[in-house]
Amino acid sequence: MAIPTSRAQAKEMDRQDPLRMLRDQFDLDDSLIYLDGNSLGAPTKAALSRLRQTAEIEWKRDLIKSWNTAGWIDLPKSCGRKIASVIGVDADDVLICDSVSTNIFKLAGALWSKAPGAIAYCRGEFPTDGYILQGLSRLTGASLDTLADGGPDVINGNVNVIIKSVVDYKSAAVTDISAWEQMASAHGVAIIWDLSHAAGLLDLQLKETGAKYAVGCGYKFLNGGPGAPAYIYADKAAAEQLSQPLSGWMGHAKPFDFADDYAPAEGVDRFACGTPPILSLSVLDAALDVFEGVSMSAVEAKAAGLGDLLLARCAQLGLESIAPGIGEKRGGHISVRHPNGYEIVQALIAKGIIGDFRPPDLMRFGFSPLYIRHTDIWNAADMLEEILTSETWRNPEFAERKAVV
Amino acid sequence: MAIPTSRAQAKEMDRQDPLRMLRDQFDLDDSLIYLDGNSLGAPTKAALSRLRQTAEIEWKRDLIKSWNTAGWIDLPKSCGRKIASVIGVDADDVLICDSVSTNIFKLAGALWSKAPGAIAYCRGEFPTDGYILQGLSRLTGASLDTLADGGPDVINGNVNVIIKSVVDYKSAAVTDISAWEQMASAHGVAIIWDLSHAAGLLDLQLKETGAKYAVGCGYKFLNGGPGAPAYIYADKAAAEQLSQPLSGWMGHAKPFDFADDYAPAEGVDRFACGTPPILSLSVLDAALDVFEGVSMSAVEAKAAGLGDLLLARCAQLGLESIAPGIGEKRGGHISVRHPNGYEIVQALIAKGIIGDFRPPDLMRFGFSPLYIRHTDIWNAADMLEEILTSETWRNPEFAERKAVV
Repeated sequence: MAIPTSRAQAKEMDRQDPLRMLRDQFDLDDSLIYLDGNSLGAPTKAALSRLRQTAEIEWKRDLIKSWNTAGWIDLPKSCGRKIASVIGVDADDVLICDSVSTNIFKLAGALWSKAPGAIAYCRGEFPTDGYILQGLSRLTGASLDTLADGGPDVINGNVNVIIKSVVDYKSAAVTDISAWEQMASAHGVAIIWDLSHAAGLLDLQLKETGAKYAVGCGYKFLNGGPGAPAYIYADKAAAEQLSQPLSGWMGHAKPFDFADDYAPAEGVDRFACGTPPILSLSVLDAALDVFEGVSMSAVEAKAAGLGDLLLARCAQLGLESIAPGIGEKRGGHISVRHPNGYEIVQALIAKGIIGDFRPPDLMRFGFSPLYIRHTDIWNAADMLEEILTSETWRNPEFAERKAVV
Repeated sequence: MAIPTSRAQAKEMDRQDPLRMLRDQFDLDDSLIYLDGNSLGAPTKAALSRLRQTAEIEWKRDLIKSWNTAGWIDLPKSCGRKIASVIGVDADDVLICDSVSTNIFKLAGALWSKAPGAIAYCRGEFPTDGYILQGLSRLTGASLDTLADGGPDVINGNVNVIIKSVVDYKSAAVTDISAWEQMASAHGVAIIWDLSHAAGLLDLQLKETGAKYAVGCGYKFLNGGPGAPAYIYADKAAAEQLSQPLSGWMGHAKPFDFADDYAPAEGVDRFACGTPPILSLSVLDAALDVFEGVSMSAVEAKAAGLGDLLLARCAQLGLESIAPGIGEKRGGHISVRHPNGYEIVQALIAKGIIGDFRPPDLMRFGFSPLYIRHTDIWNAADMLEEILTSETWRNPEFAERKAVV
């Protein structure tokens, strides 16, 4: 697709966008350009409405009965089915539970127990993935390794379990899952895929790639709300072979028998642990309905176009990008370097353009294809140009450092 | 306090109840008698209002900025301070995170790593406590033991780490924390206390007992909403010696440095793992405000009186109780036996009296002293009497089995 070179062209692309009606399902303030959906997705109207229902009717009016009557007890599974459809795996192989960090521990622990070799992560990927393997290694004595940068040929027979991001949280580089799985299979290695920055954005078709294990968060491109529960995918036959270390009561075959001895539930269901946070889970469940009937290949194509446009504009501004270039496969964000990136991001936020900053010098702009338009990218780039030219980012209040998730 | 022997006397006790104004803070349907607050607490008006604020203003309007501007990033700690006050420990020694099951794994794993001896649980206590130690043992090879029934003299030098409930989920028997801690200290044993059925009900004064580690859930007597996040207590000096196995990024000393290597945060803060479910956490935070300025000894005393009344009425109906008797220390629920307990509980629910059932034959009735009145107990007992006398529980629709949390 051609990259728009004027606001008029950007507007025309929005008019022709097959996904253009989806934005209406979101409850977004039109005075904002929200380029941080890769960090925290925006709410759909349906999600906010469902939250009111869960709080005011299910909890307040029906109280404990709602575990049955409102289907709370089934939510980890019924909501998991919606994610299964988005990432392209069998419906019953996804379960909503806990956080990404906790789910990595469960899968890595289970896989290491089955084949106690070395466990490995990639330095420079999202830190929690490595931190969790470091913790697992401290607890169990598992040998810990790091993978060299590069393609699937960095896999060798020295490791048994790998955690790997599909989309890098800084560069937006995309890993070729099929190629890695092929190499992993040849070396008897299990890969846990971190889909956090990929699910809801790329047309993953995960089952076809041969991937057997994955985790991901619900609050980025899946729009499940701040800190939404995470999910875990495990191929059924593979899961049946695994002993899950965080064997809490919700992963028991018959939790309401209150038996003294743990017995795992079927397949991925054994990865449940404690009682799930229903208010947050209910919102995620409703948020996922926006994907119903949506072609993930159309979503990926639109994201590619939005990214190409932003890259072209940033190049004109002389900003060096660390993202895959125009026409290349990438995630739903672009990171560009500037020594004063932090201040520039704050200056943009003050103008209603919300991006974020990642140390040491990366300005990161995300574009959720469900609600971001080509004109949004165009207007944001105009403002970025104005801030750089006028140097309004030099205002000292923009230098004050705050934590940003 | 004398046990009321008529509805008029029950009403008079409600009039004299020093906590009687607290019920107004809850949003409870007056046509119900809710005797399941020990399983899922009722919502306060403030909690429901806070949820609307968090969803409609903080998420919808302010989006990612709310991690800073709405204090989301501090919630695990600021909300933890409120629980610290309810259970009687130092303000900074409690953190909200994950589920009870996950938190037991973290503490037990950390304590076992430090002193790799046997880990032990009590059969018959809430199953997840044992399931988690079983999982930890499978993962690490830790020697797993069970404790005999009885007092603190069941502790011996053969175990290093124990998980123990303060209030038993079936019988409501209360463990003498100080006595156990004294024995544990003599044998070099660490006890993880499960406060789930005790916090928000008993005047725990946990620090004074010598307890150093505890976990508990937010959704019972703390009224934090369905599946509310759990909490973890670790004495600061003790926590500083511990290496937490679920070392996710939120427990890092500087999570927003995105460093490759894990370094633990101070004290109990190292027990954080992944990104917390903010909607659920925000509700718990607001729900805890009902405890501000409330004497926990008054709460415990009222619960004792409500339980004595229910026990007296059940005894008149010939129902055998497994709870500590009248005048004895106990938790906030009474379990009584009946071979058709399941059907009777369903018949009560059909009449707007909500209790629950625990296999094989226990009808369990809870009484949250913040919103249950002596007249509620009186009226519930009248209805139980009517159902038993008229045998209306024999309706076949009451026999249909459903999962009940």
